[in-house]
Amino acid sequence: MTHEIAVIPGDGIGQEVTPAAIEVLESFPIDFEFVEAEAGDAVLAETGEALPQETYDLAASADATLFGAVGETAADVILPLRTAVDSFVNIRPAKAYPGVDAVRPETDLVFLRENTEGVYSGLEDRLTQDVSTLTRVVTESASKRLAEFACDYVAGDEHDGFSIVHKANVMRETDGLFRDTVRDVAEEQGVETNEVLMDAFATRVCLDPEQFDVVVCPNLAGDVLSDLAAGLVGGLGLLPSANIGPERAVFEPVHGTAPDIAGEGIANPAAMILSTAMLLEYLGYEAESAAVDDAVEATLEEGPRTADLGGDASTDDVTEAIIDRL
Amino acid sequence: MTHEIAVIPGDGIGQEVTPAAIEVLESFPIDFEFVEAEAGDAVLAETGEALPQETYDLAASADATLFGAVGETAADVILPLRTAVDSFVNIRPAKAYPGVDAVRPETDLVFLRENTEGVYSGLEDRLTQDVSTLTRVVTESASKRLAEFACDYVAGDEHDGFSIVHKANVMRETDGLFRDTVRDVAEEQGVETNEVLMDAFATRVCLDPEQFDVVVCPNLAGDVLSDLAAGLVGGLGLLPSANIGPERAVFEPVHGTAPDIAGEGIANPAAMILSTAMLLEYLGYEAESAAVDDAVEATLEEGPRTADLGGDASTDDVTEAIIDRL
Ligand SMILES: CC(C)[C@H](C(=O)O)[C@@H](O)C(=O)O
Ligand SMILES: CC(C)[C@H](C(=O)O)[C@@H](O)C(=O)O
Repeated sequence: MTHEIAVIPGDGIGQEVTPAAIEVLESFPIDFEFVEAEAGDAVLAETGEALPQETYDLAASADATLFGAVGETAADVILPLRTAVDSFVNIRPAKAYPGVDAVRPETDLVFLRENTEGVYSGLEDRLTQDVSTLTRVVTESASKRLAEFACDYVAGDEHDGFSIVHKANVMRETDGLFRDTVRDVAEEQGVETNEVLMDAFATRVCLDPEQFDVVVCPNLAGDVLSDLAAGLVGGLGLLPSANIGPERAVFEPVHGTAPDIAGEGIANPAAMILSTAMLLEYLGYEAESAAVDDAVEATLEEGPRTADLGGDASTDDVTEAIIDRL
Repeated sequence: MTHEIAVIPGDGIGQEVTPAAIEVLESFPIDFEFVEAEAGDAVLAETGEALPQETYDLAASADATLFGAVGETAADVILPLRTAVDSFVNIRPAKAYPGVDAVRPETDLVFLRENTEGVYSGLEDRLTQDVSTLTRVVTESASKRLAEFACDYVAGDEHDGFSIVHKANVMRETDGLFRDTVRDVAEEQGVETNEVLMDAFATRVCLDPEQFDVVVCPNLAGDVLSDLAAGLVGGLGLLPSANIGPERAVFEPVHGTAPDIAGEGIANPAAMILSTAMLLEYLGYEAESAAVDDAVEATLEEGPRTADLGGDASTDDVTEAIIDRL
């Protein structure tokens, strides 16, 4: 069985870490067909469109998409790509690695972020000169779909249920619906949950990240709180993510285009390669996925290291070291 | 001139730290008239109302209100109290103190949080069984009023302008209006600003809090990011806050009712007393305000300390020590 993988390197170091990720995937005896497409600042400048229709269509039909990074056009590219695969959940692990400086080295969290609605619904108006409005949408159906995914995600021994993070004391109807729906699904499935207000979560995760494990939350809460967790583990540089839809998915590192080092061949490919581990798992290659995770972890700990982690290795050196450890 | 101060101790340790704060105020030769009123879980259980009309009216007419803490009813009490004084800005300093364990001891931030609108507008609907909506409101007038306050706040030598934190890449119309209005006011007044996306702020403030100083942001962003900063300085326990309106204001510690230690006389009165320092400054007693700040800081550093900071002093011991240092 051939897996068609859309490959969108994007801008800046996206162009450098994406080939590294493909090399890792090609080191397995799996039948991948890689199809490359453009998106981002450069293609906007050339063509007037940050996300050409062909790229959208490709992501909407490929089995999975590997997305590098784009610059200023991030929102114009990544939000439609999520729509292209009907992604209802964004999986964002935030884990501190041995050998990497972290504000809170005990951090080991996974955010399951609602990925279709909330303030991301795009319903805004300038009603008068003075007044602008945004309609925040929360549906029972999207909350249910997320909750069912979350229950599957925590099944097995590794996790004791999940935390529901929300702001239902202020957004009573919308986050109330989110909280109640997620809690009810979990209860039916015998999954344990606890509830934390979004602001209290922000304080508590700094003070003691180990009290949390899997966090289920609305779209903007997931955006901000997963970036907070990224701060606790030492930055966005090492975090992968997956935008999962019912039939396809988009995988991307959380980092940006790093214009200061782009083109020098010294970008750290770890987050992109960890994103391919998520892709492998998504396609059912669990052993291969675990092997990639372990090889990246060993390389972070033992080197070689790129400049962001105090080393002087190139992207290629690190990629080879990871492949050697597979 | 007599200053009428509404005093709302509330529930739990609110009942213990509020008298401490009043003792501090009474140690100055200033003519205060304190008028006590009820709010919170206990009065809800007794009367069916968490915020009795008399309490609301008192806050709406007093020169200033000192508010302790309330439990489950927090949103039903504090949000109307903000309305009672037409509070358009919530000032939230988040500063690490010598002698107090902090995740990031270099943290010294002040959040100026929009306090009337955003997702706090209370406009929610359950449109169908499946769909709920919330209307997030951002006005030019509220953004302008906040920006003018912020420009006054940073005038003088202590601050180099402020950061505008928003999510205008997604909430283009509403946070776009917020960002543009605040930036334009600052530009007119010759105040320097920089802009940071809310999610990027969450990462960056963990990695290096010293790159920020005064932060101007919409309502929910201020809620979550100031609580994040509270985590970086070691918890909510020591943080004061001020809800400022055009003619009156409400001062409150950021901590809650601490039901685990309520009634034991061992609550740390520091945050409540720091809130009185903000009240003194608001009423124009700058020297007295600075004296209270300094006395609290010295006491945090040199003791006596309450149990939350590893000591065994009582609320009264700490209050006396602070008053002795004035
Ligand atoms: C680029 C932006 C629209 C996006 C978001 O807010 O979701 C990004 O911050 C992310 O988290 O992937
Ligand atoms: C109690 C709650 C409504 C309130 C808020 O969200 O503003 C609180 O978290 C705060 O920050 O004062």
